[in-house]
Amino acid sequence: MDLKPLLSHIELELQRQVSRLDQPHTKIFHGMLTYHMGWSGEGSGPEAAGKRIRPLLVLLTTAACGTDWHSALSAAAAVELVHNFSLVHDDIQDNSPKRRGRYTAWVKWGAPMAINVGDALFVISNQAIVDLKQNYPAETVLRAARILHDTCLDLTRGQFLDMSYEERTDLKVEDYWPMISGKTAALLAACCQIGAVLGGADEEKEETYRAYGHYWGLAFQVQDDILGIWGDEKVTGKSVASDLVEGKNSLPVLIGLGKKRKFAERWAKGPIRSEEVEEVARLLASEGGYGEAKEVSIQMTDLAVNSLREADPQGEAGEALFEMTNKLLNRSQ
Amino acid sequence: MDLKPLLSHIELELQRQVSRLDQPHTKIFHGMLTYHMGWSGEGSGPEAAGKRIRPLLVLLTTAACGTDWHSALSAAAAVELVHNFSLVHDDIQDNSPKRRGRYTAWVKWGAPMAINVGDALFVISNQAIVDLKQNYPAETVLRAARILHDTCLDLTRGQFLDMSYEERTDLKVEDYWPMISGKTAALLAACCQIGAVLGGADEEKEETYRAYGHYWGLAFQVQDDILGIWGDEKVTGKSVASDLVEGKNSLPVLIGLGKKRKFAERWAKGPIRSEEVEEVARLLASEGGYGEAKEVSIQMTDLAVNSLREADPQGEAGEALFEMTNKLLNRSQ
Repeated sequence: MDLKPLLSHIELELQRQVSRLDQPHTKIFHGMLTYHMGWSGEGSGPEAAGKRIRPLLVLLTTAACGTDWHSALSAAAAVELVHNFSLVHDDIQDNSPKRRGRYTAWVKWGAPMAINVGDALFVISNQAIVDLKQNYPAETVLRAARILHDTCLDLTRGQFLDMSYEERTDLKVEDYWPMISGKTAALLAACCQIGAVLGGADEEKEETYRAYGHYWGLAFQVQDDILGIWGDEKVTGKSVASDLVEGKNSLPVLIGLGKKRKFAERWAKGPIRSEEVEEVARLLASEGGYGEAKEVSIQMTDLAVNSLREADPQGEAGEALFEMTNKLLNRSQ
Repeated sequence: MDLKPLLSHIELELQRQVSRLDQPHTKIFHGMLTYHMGWSGEGSGPEAAGKRIRPLLVLLTTAACGTDWHSALSAAAAVELVHNFSLVHDDIQDNSPKRRGRYTAWVKWGAPMAINVGDALFVISNQAIVDLKQNYPAETVLRAARILHDTCLDLTRGQFLDMSYEERTDLKVEDYWPMISGKTAALLAACCQIGAVLGGADEEKEETYRAYGHYWGLAFQVQDDILGIWGDEKVTGKSVASDLVEGKNSLPVLIGLGKKRKFAERWAKGPIRSEEVEEVARLLASEGGYGEAKEVSIQMTDLAVNSLREADPQGEAGEALFEMTNKLLNRSQ
């Protein structure tokens, strides 16, 4: 299936939604949102916009349930806006100066303005989901809205855990799952569930699609964690092992800490310096951090693919879902 | 009408909504929200919680349209949660260490956590408005939700203008209204409109209630601006003329700048020092800043009262609306 028409419709719908701020008094404010979305300013373009995986999942799921994906476009925009709201606030919270090679909103306009940019993206996501009313009965719109809102609370839960873990030295692998379920898996699960609701799936199928998105998200995050330590810099675009330098509580690190051996000893001593990342990464791998995380990633990928098989997506969109899942979960970037 | 039963039901509903975060992994996070809402931590109690004017307006309007206010409780909670989300982010943006005599969330837990606290309050407001589904048809819930979302975008617009004005030296009285319409009047207008929708009012009456809330909000803000410069410290709880020291672009200040006389000259020279506030406040009053702002406040109050008369609110709740309007708009604090 050619995804280009879906991607261009997603972009148009996003622009239409964000244009609510394109008014005389708020042109500059509108420009801040279009910059973050990758449409304006230095370095704008598809690279800056990102892959739009979440809205694609909504549309493909809707289509794979036998409904025209055009009717789900405002929901697709809504999930992407939620994702972007969380990125803008995340960048302030993590003090990250760059995202996708460009300066983040808070670097360009200061944290106070950037908080408001994130808030506006969030508000517009709410407006976008209500716009489903043009194509769906009010009951269906409310179901989709409820799924989205519940997911957003999961996002704040995951964000809270992530930040509260920064100060902790006693983290275990068990602490990883609630954080990552909220931060990554919840929104991907919601994309597939909302797509199923809008596609007219029954409740059982809706839950199966939700499970697919959930495991997909977990697999995706574990892979991201592995690439953050052992990825190829030329492919990932991030400096290798940067997650170690940043002290990120990723799955490989928590596995390593659980071993209570040399890696755990080194980790307890304080921040990893750039000069020693290669050595520490090797140490972590030798103690099982790489192999065991890889094993988990394969398990989660299997669970995702099995759920997708069970959901039995139809037609070209169904094939595209399988293709996307395989491609993204065998990614090297 | 005795407002106590309404106030206690509002508080219970707010607590029920916020308790969504009262779960094993997020007890501390939940505690941050209950602290901000005034229910826990040092200095908690009614003083810390605030007056709950917005949810009261929702319930009284619903009742004044002839519908039992109990059915609108989750909408009342939603508007108060929106208000509180904006306060938490506002305190970070303004660098305000205290609110209602207590340390603000960012002072207690840092800006990154406080951003997330605000986000969570906002998410829960969305969940609360959808909860109306327990008492209303889906179509009505969606109408209320749309009003709330549109209002939230107005809030971000007002916030943008407020922050962008900080750097400007060419502000005029005309610049005041779009800012204050977004920051203060939009949510009060939404409270009355949502109350009317949930009360079963026809479209014309709905608009009249909306106008009432809008003018009420404008009058309220102008009064607040006057009190921020010439208020009685013992009554307002703020140090007199603190708005002058903070360089706030309030209506009296913009009126004074428009005169291009001595006040404008002094303002252009840089921040007002505490020692000179009394003198500068007197200067601004002598050039019309006090009298003209007071005149505007009286006009807006009249517009609010006239709109309320036109809406013709019924019963005890209607009387309470008139009473509340008169009391709040003749306040000295």
